[in-house]
Amino acid sequence: MRILTEHGPKDYQAVWMEGGKLKMIDQRLLPEKFEIVVFEDVEDVGRAIKDMTVRGAPAIGAAAAYGMALAALKGKDLDESGELLKSQRPTAHDLFYAVDFMLGALKRGEEPTKAANRYANQIVEKCRLIGVNGALLIKDGDKIMTHCNAGALATVDYGTALAPIRVAWRGRKKLFVYVSETRPRLQGMKLTAYELRNEEIPHAIIVDGASGHFMRKGVDLVIVGADSVALNGDFANKIGTFEKAVLAKELRIPFYVAAPISTFDFDTESGKDIVIEDRDEDEVLVMNGKRIAPEGCGALNPSFDMTPAKYVTGFITEIGVLDPEQIARVRGARI
Amino acid sequence: MRILTEHGPKDYQAVWMEGGKLKMIDQRLLPEKFEIVVFEDVEDVGRAIKDMTVRGAPAIGAAAAYGMALAALKGKDLDESGELLKSQRPTAHDLFYAVDFMLGALKRGEEPTKAANRYANQIVEKCRLIGVNGALLIKDGDKIMTHCNAGALATVDYGTALAPIRVAWRGRKKLFVYVSETRPRLQGMKLTAYELRNEEIPHAIIVDGASGHFMRKGVDLVIVGADSVALNGDFANKIGTFEKAVLAKELRIPFYVAAPISTFDFDTESGKDIVIEDRDEDEVLVMNGKRIAPEGCGALNPSFDMTPAKYVTGFITEIGVLDPEQIARVRGARI
Repeated sequence: MRILTEHGPKDYQAVWMEGGKLKMIDQRLLPEKFEIVVFEDVEDVGRAIKDMTVRGAPAIGAAAAYGMALAALKGKDLDESGELLKSQRPTAHDLFYAVDFMLGALKRGEEPTKAANRYANQIVEKCRLIGVNGALLIKDGDKIMTHCNAGALATVDYGTALAPIRVAWRGRKKLFVYVSETRPRLQGMKLTAYELRNEEIPHAIIVDGASGHFMRKGVDLVIVGADSVALNGDFANKIGTFEKAVLAKELRIPFYVAAPISTFDFDTESGKDIVIEDRDEDEVLVMNGKRIAPEGCGALNPSFDMTPAKYVTGFITEIGVLDPEQIARVRGARI
Repeated sequence: MRILTEHGPKDYQAVWMEGGKLKMIDQRLLPEKFEIVVFEDVEDVGRAIKDMTVRGAPAIGAAAAYGMALAALKGKDLDESGELLKSQRPTAHDLFYAVDFMLGALKRGEEPTKAANRYANQIVEKCRLIGVNGALLIKDGDKIMTHCNAGALATVDYGTALAPIRVAWRGRKKLFVYVSETRPRLQGMKLTAYELRNEEIPHAIIVDGASGHFMRKGVDLVIVGADSVALNGDFANKIGTFEKAVLAKELRIPFYVAAPISTFDFDTESGKDIVIEDRDEDEVLVMNGKRIAPEGCGALNPSFDMTPAKYVTGFITEIGVLDPEQIARVRGARI
């Protein structure tokens, strides 16, 4: 992804391996500070996944792959390391996929760093293809709404929901992007708007509750990411996604989910079986270290919601745009 | 409304007249500080309406009525004072209604404070009746969702959307209230949760984007307030209301709008003619004086949205629960 630094634009990935160490952009500090953190142990990588130094399902997958590489390089027990990583975020299917990928590769004797790089590079290439496939759905002058950050920060590079927007923009289509801020952690405001500004793509931040208002005023398509897609096309994504899907259906706006096939969980029949992570109420009640809620009041803080397949126009993947009914046919054809 | 003070529970109104001066709870400081501000001039009352020291359509109406009383007591030009007050918040129909009420009363020679008290007491009594009528819709054990603050703070006392909840609770019905925080100004979190805690009504704060998630998990009814209701039943309310209405319809949850007849604008045919106020982008981008958005990114900040009548199950008013089609029949029967 392009970052405008004081020395001009520079290309970065969200996570990468360098000199036997794992490096990540610390996403908790954005947009105020751009800082790189360095990891040498799988346990620390687990903590970084838990505390959201790295977030976004595909980027979590890449971080986990590199975490497994670190474990292998240090001679740690691979199964135990895999279990440790898997336990950090229960909703991110890529996390399980990446750990299993690495267990397979390492047990076949592949060099750890090479295997993890192969995994991360595959993600980057898949996201680039999601961009190419999704950009075909975007017309010159379109107004697009997205939610949370399904950008390069969430996916090593390109993004999932932002990949079609990046590719269409670089292809000289005029665009305008509505970025819903995505409470409680404001990843839309803090990360997606940050990425769009770095690419100089026109956009405006809106509060989550204004999505319906602007959809009615004129949005041409909605593109969101996914943390997990079930076999029947039900999917989990950041809290607030379900609302946008219902509104898009009601207002007859195409609603697309951009995700690599690694986010599809073919062993989960439907959304009813997707585990939704509840996070600490302080994410809602405290802002910048200061309590913003009245004393004595509590919050409920589900991190994700589940959107039934009937609200999805199509899944933008690296192998094309799929109808929900086509997902089952991809099973077994993992690329 | 009941406020738990260090000396035990005490009853307050949002605005009232005392010794020829207008007093208000400063709602910008809640929930951190409970502070009373005092006004002697209509110009200062106008500023307090603009800067949201007082907010909520009926409370704005009462503040405007008292502002007109102050103008009359100081011998100011009444028409000019009325215009000044009306220009502060373009979407609040009660503001226009209150100014016109006072112009009529003052021109008939009524004593200013007495006329304004009559207006404010009418609001309190209307809200109490909204509570009684609305409480009949609430069953023991119901889970209720509300948005923004349509509570006692917004309406002098009782509230509109919160009045049925207060009356049902005081009638010993068990309840649980989902309070959506209501970005950007967080009136749900800061004011509604504050009121519910002071009444000791069980509740949880949720982010606005979680409304659909919890509606699907099980909400028995949604009750919101209104800033303006058009003749055909379309209505304006805090941004985010339209989304809840669409979700409630999709999930077959009754969706009620609680408002006194003074909020009904019989001269506005439909929602298309309701003026939606855009407020400063810093309400979205800045929190507690600190910028939370990336530098160089802008926001769009409509304060209200418009919900078409077809999403409304009923309007809870002081004269009963009305279907949208019944509104036109009330025209001319102002009470």
